[in-house]
Amino acid sequence: MIITETRTVFWEDGQVCLIDQRKLPETFEIARCSTHFEVAEAIQSMVVRGAPAIGIAAAFGMAQAALHSAATDRQALYADLMAAAEVLRKARPTAANLSWAVAQMLRYAERSEHQDVTALKQGLLAHAQRMADDDVRINKQIGAHGAALVPEVATIIHHCNTGSLATVFWGTALGVIRSAHMQGKRLHVLVDETRPRLQGAKLTSWELLQLGIPHTIIADGASGYFMRRRRVDLCLVGADRIAANGDVANKIGTYNLAIVAREHNVPFYVAAPWSTVDMSLAHGDLIEIEERSADEVTMINGVRIAPDGACAANPAFDVTPHHYISGIITEYGVLRPPYTVSLAQLAARIQEGKV
Amino acid sequence: MIITETRTVFWEDGQVCLIDQRKLPETFEIARCSTHFEVAEAIQSMVVRGAPAIGIAAAFGMAQAALHSAATDRQALYADLMAAAEVLRKARPTAANLSWAVAQMLRYAERSEHQDVTALKQGLLAHAQRMADDDVRINKQIGAHGAALVPEVATIIHHCNTGSLATVFWGTALGVIRSAHMQGKRLHVLVDETRPRLQGAKLTSWELLQLGIPHTIIADGASGYFMRRRRVDLCLVGADRIAANGDVANKIGTYNLAIVAREHNVPFYVAAPWSTVDMSLAHGDLIEIEERSADEVTMINGVRIAPDGACAANPAFDVTPHHYISGIITEYGVLRPPYTVSLAQLAARIQEGKV
Repeated sequence: MIITETRTVFWEDGQVCLIDQRKLPETFEIARCSTHFEVAEAIQSMVVRGAPAIGIAAAFGMAQAALHSAATDRQALYADLMAAAEVLRKARPTAANLSWAVAQMLRYAERSEHQDVTALKQGLLAHAQRMADDDVRINKQIGAHGAALVPEVATIIHHCNTGSLATVFWGTALGVIRSAHMQGKRLHVLVDETRPRLQGAKLTSWELLQLGIPHTIIADGASGYFMRRRRVDLCLVGADRIAANGDVANKIGTYNLAIVAREHNVPFYVAAPWSTVDMSLAHGDLIEIEERSADEVTMINGVRIAPDGACAANPAFDVTPHHYISGIITEYGVLRPPYTVSLAQLAARIQEGKV
Repeated sequence: MIITETRTVFWEDGQVCLIDQRKLPETFEIARCSTHFEVAEAIQSMVVRGAPAIGIAAAFGMAQAALHSAATDRQALYADLMAAAEVLRKARPTAANLSWAVAQMLRYAERSEHQDVTALKQGLLAHAQRMADDDVRINKQIGAHGAALVPEVATIIHHCNTGSLATVFWGTALGVIRSAHMQGKRLHVLVDETRPRLQGAKLTSWELLQLGIPHTIIADGASGYFMRRRRVDLCLVGADRIAANGDVANKIGTYNLAIVAREHNVPFYVAAPWSTVDMSLAHGDLIEIEERSADEVTMINGVRIAPDGACAANPAFDVTPHHYISGIITEYGVLRPPYTVSLAQLAARIQEGKV
């Protein structure tokens, strides 16, 4: 089972290695990036996607930039890292984890006690590696906290892909499903196909098949039909950026799902690591939403579906206001409304080193 | 401009001619059905789709069955028509217009004063032709009533295809848009792509391009994003069957759109001819929902997008409860809630020949 053995993002022989998610489910292939420019390009073109996964890819990209730097003193190395950070950050604007990971690497460089530049470079690589390892640990904690919310027998609607592919390993929302499944809970996942890029149909289904978790792919517009017709116990999604009031930017279609869930009294949970939270933004309308190419809507698998001359809009994310969200599942536990309070309290505890 | 000149369903040289909607927008091709069995097959495989269009196709199929019948007396002819009705009706279960049109043809055969079988057969063809002409007239009436609801400058979200292609000519919900556009109103249509079969991206966009009406294709899950970000003035959809309480069966995704519209206080209108109304059903949960092949979800343009072994569910329609619907636009005017009353009153007036 590929997905239970391979990390989505890993370091090997100086290269940042990524499962090429554009080729799944047809072909399993590892893309290898030799420079941080190639990493940025891989993030932009969605060879790697998923907020936590692109964060760690960028951290390794920063390590690569350090190792390739000709700098012989800390100051020059830091300047090179700042330049690399700029390249990596702008690859995709919405996911908080990308800028968070880059900032973590810069902070390590600033605070490191290594005076020797060679040692500092190695230290940066080791730090990126620790961040990758942390991501796996964090996801399993999210899984454990979230699994407690899942009934013994449950039908779950899931949007986009939030599994091992979206992280280093295990996953966030899909990690919760995986953890609940491993506890012996009997689950059926309704997999939103997630237009336009079909991450649900292509990636989530690919993971669930390998994990042996029963599931059915549905069109995104069908979620209300299923909530009306059969019992749906909860919705589980990931996040790309969470504002200080609990508003959540996530894959386009999440907001519609949240509205439809509330209309049917179906609990709607967001699962994300703390690195997705951006306490600098008061609310979700301040989150930059990436607009991707219209071709992602008008072409599927390289074949144009719309008539020549037709235009499409392709916002990659939407913002779900906090009042639709039943809880935010983090590695520190499940946060409940009012999020302005629960997020601020957790932020303070983290700041004080109390968690 | 193809769409402004050609009827979607027409009779020529004994054949039922249909614009082959499976081939649009790439190829414009007329499919020709020589028997009512071929008509039934064309309806089932969605060569022709759209509730009014499949109704008229079936009416012509009934005429074809009559003309091909070897019957030499009215009773034998009626028996043949009953057999043809059975074949045609079961091609697709949800749209009321299909069984309505077949019933109209049977009733004509029952009540006709033609004693001569040959004359009756010709009478049936002429009746089908009148029904086709009526459809065009009715759509233009729907267009006129509906256009009055559209502001001078308006952004409209439209789901599926309800244009000339879904009818004989002009369209229902898209006919409203066409009528408003012809009145000089400045419109922008956000076209739900309408998974799984992409009638919005493939067909509605094709019609709007020819009509010169500005529009943008969006993923179905993006409607809430646009309602939050910019002013959306109304949603316009068609219907496949309307129950006596105003519950509406329509293309899958309609229900989600209706919920999201209400959440944003965006008026949500349904446009349909009276033939779509099924007063025999007290509410929408009694409407049979067609489940189509999972391949429509897991394959696009013949290419599989989901992993081998993955399952999909593909309900072709959903039911939108009446309380989400701001008005039902018919050829007789705009019906308002409570629909139990307004539909019953209109049904009575029609029964009494007062409209």
